Amino acid sequence: MKEMDNIFSDRIADVPRSFIREILKVTIDPEIISFAGGLPNRDLFPVEEIKAATNKIISMHGRDVFQYSTSEGYAKLREYIAERYNREKNINVSSEDILITSGSQQGLDLLGKIMINDGESIIIEEPGYLGAIQAFSIYKPKFLPVPVSDEGMDIEKLRLIMSSEKPKLMYTVPNFSNPSGVSYSEKNRHEIAKILQKTNTFLIEDDPYGDLRFAGKNKTSFKKLFPENTILLGSFSKIIVPGFRIGWVCAPQHVMKKLIIAKQATDLHTSHFTQSIIYQYLKDNDIDEHIMKIKQVYGKQCEAMLESIRQYFPDNVKYTKPEGGMFLWVQLPGNLSSLKLFDLAVKDKVIFVPGDPFYINKKNTNTLRLNFSCVDEATIRIGIERLGKAIRELINIKK
Amino acid sequence: MKEMDNIFSDRIADVPRSFIREILKVTIDPEIISFAGGLPNRDLFPVEEIKAATNKIISMHGRDVFQYSTSEGYAKLREYIAERYNREKNINVSSEDILITSGSQQGLDLLGKIMINDGESIIIEEPGYLGAIQAFSIYKPKFLPVPVSDEGMDIEKLRLIMSSEKPKLMYTVPNFSNPSGVSYSEKNRHEIAKILQKTNTFLIEDDPYGDLRFAGKNKTSFKKLFPENTILLGSFSKIIVPGFRIGWVCAPQHVMKKLIIAKQATDLHTSHFTQSIIYQYLKDNDIDEHIMKIKQVYGKQCEAMLESIRQYFPDNVKYTKPEGGMFLWVQLPGNLSSLKLFDLAVKDKVIFVPGDPFYINKKNTNTLRLNFSCVDEATIRIGIERLGKAIRELINIKK
Repeated sequence: MKEMDNIFSDRIADVPRSFIREILKVTIDPEIISFAGGLPNRDLFPVEEIKAATNKIISMHGRDVFQYSTSEGYAKLREYIAERYNREKNINVSSEDILITSGSQQGLDLLGKIMINDGESIIIEEPGYLGAIQAFSIYKPKFLPVPVSDEGMDIEKLRLIMSSEKPKLMYTVPNFSNPSGVSYSEKNRHEIAKILQKTNTFLIEDDPYGDLRFAGKNKTSFKKLFPENTILLGSFSKIIVPGFRIGWVCAPQHVMKKLIIAKQATDLHTSHFTQSIIYQYLKDNDIDEHIMKIKQVYGKQCEAMLESIRQYFPDNVKYTKPEGGMFLWVQLPGNLSSLKLFDLAVKDKVIFVPGDPFYINKKNTNTLRLNFSCVDEATIRIGIERLGKAIRELINIKK
Repeated sequence: MKEMDNIFSDRIADVPRSFIREILKVTIDPEIISFAGGLPNRDLFPVEEIKAATNKIISMHGRDVFQYSTSEGYAKLREYIAERYNREKNINVSSEDILITSGSQQGLDLLGKIMINDGESIIIEEPGYLGAIQAFSIYKPKFLPVPVSDEGMDIEKLRLIMSSEKPKLMYTVPNFSNPSGVSYSEKNRHEIAKILQKTNTFLIEDDPYGDLRFAGKNKTSFKKLFPENTILLGSFSKIIVPGFRIGWVCAPQHVMKKLIIAKQATDLHTSHFTQSIIYQYLKDNDIDEHIMKIKQVYGKQCEAMLESIRQYFPDNVKYTKPEGGMFLWVQLPGNLSSLKLFDLAVKDKVIFVPGDPFYINKKNTNTLRLNFSCVDEATIRIGIERLGKAIRELINIKK
């Protein structure tokens, strides 16, 4: 028998496994209402349009779409993305600043790869995106969590950290964050920009949900506020389909050079076939009209969830009021454990994601994530009623 | 102005850029005959069959193929791959042992990620695949090159290294290697297996070309010889199309567990859409018949290249005689530099890849790689004649 203990790298030992994966095993029971998912609503996928785009590119480009391609990505798609930033967000970038990645998750891996040495520090919003924690953990950083509330990041805490540490990166999802649903206010963004502006810290603005605003006003992108220090991540997963795995990184040129080397070493390039389909779809369809449809559905589902929470949850339960995206964040009163709530809720046939995996170093938190993009309004009401009942049970047990 | 020197990780500093990428910029001139590529022949892509498979899966599975999916990959495709190994190579594996990756390049990145700590050693065949050197370089190993010749690895050198080092990994392309075109003999494989068997070293058997044997007899897979220490990499890039970026890793269960965690952190999963198309294509078509077609074309092209080399190259030029794959390896007499040959050859409108990037620590080598998969027989003859002329010019300059 061989010694097994030292065959793996140190870096893989620390990566948290996805709690959500484990949870999804429970959801096989079709009677369970799941607010645990993180998926876009499949009913809104533009299937016929994608089918048409697919057949068109095979007819038009033939064999070319099936061959190896460039690490940077499909030139026309990169141009489209850059132009859209210029047009929609007044962000001045060119196609040279765009790298196509295999989902924006890969953007996180590539940034960790080119930036983080063992033990170097990285600021992360808390609660923060689990996938980012996983991606960066591989490169063994020291995580410096900064709490987010309804207004955005805790500025005092950020200032304190920046006065003693020199973080390589700062990770944020400023629009309708996963998991919290929070959006950073305009003021908060300007304060953050002011603090980071004269440092060497790169801000990662991960923005998969930014287009899905169903209430309130658009906020200024960090890429607009201080372009030279901001790396902007985007994705077609939430506005077209996730199955193609097409995202992108928008970064300054000296960062882009390293990213392309890393991309090439990691998987040569992202599928040219799916990139071509996405581009053809964008060319032949009105993406803004399609996004409007998604926003209407998600907006109504979010509203149904908020209404039901007001009706069925005890008054001392706190929750965020998202203006977009797919998630809402709940805080139970006192030190009630959301893990314990999960056990009760499963019995009542409703599930969610307990907050723990979204923190760097907290266990048994009183928070949880609810997804509203995948459940219709009527089912949301039933699920939230069940969850309200489970919360009251938990409160009564504690008494 | 900010200090720019320390914003990147140490690991990205050492990754060699692809020489081949730089070379490809030269090939824009349509009159240049290129033996520099590493691409499969696009004329052999089964375009109509893929189109049919694509439309079928959209009709059959609808929205499902566009949704997020599992990190392990599409269950039916994993089953197909495992069954084919059992049937064709008598390798006893199950679908649980297969992870679908974004090309087999990603398999290399994931293995580096989960295995290599800074400075740990890894054996690599030399000349070796540039993509593997790039992928592993990210994780800062100490490379221990072992020369390959017509028979395979230099066994004495391998034994010497294994007596003093404890390498985590050993990287080989035992069938029709890129760049050398060499296949390890049956005897060489057994000797390697005997040396590695009782160690903790994992052998990576990278096998993208194994199915493309157009001469000689199939050899035994390392995965058959010592399964518990062998990690087998495969790909559909050379037998169907590369543009889908679908490869796989076949690994023992304790390695697989770590690979799945790394895969999830790296890009969540490979496109479910392209995985489904590949599976449907495999189900509806005779892949062995298709592979036979590829082998006939590549076999003839290789033969044309060998014939032309005999006719046009000086007698003291050495070269491999591939029994499959896409590449042939040339050694110039004495210390003639293939980089200098490249400059002469470009003027004669023929290009190749000089050997340097396939070595760990050698410069100005007298070797070069020729690709025969992408050029038709008549053009091969013209190109090799031009190259022979350039070699004679170089010899005359040196005199």
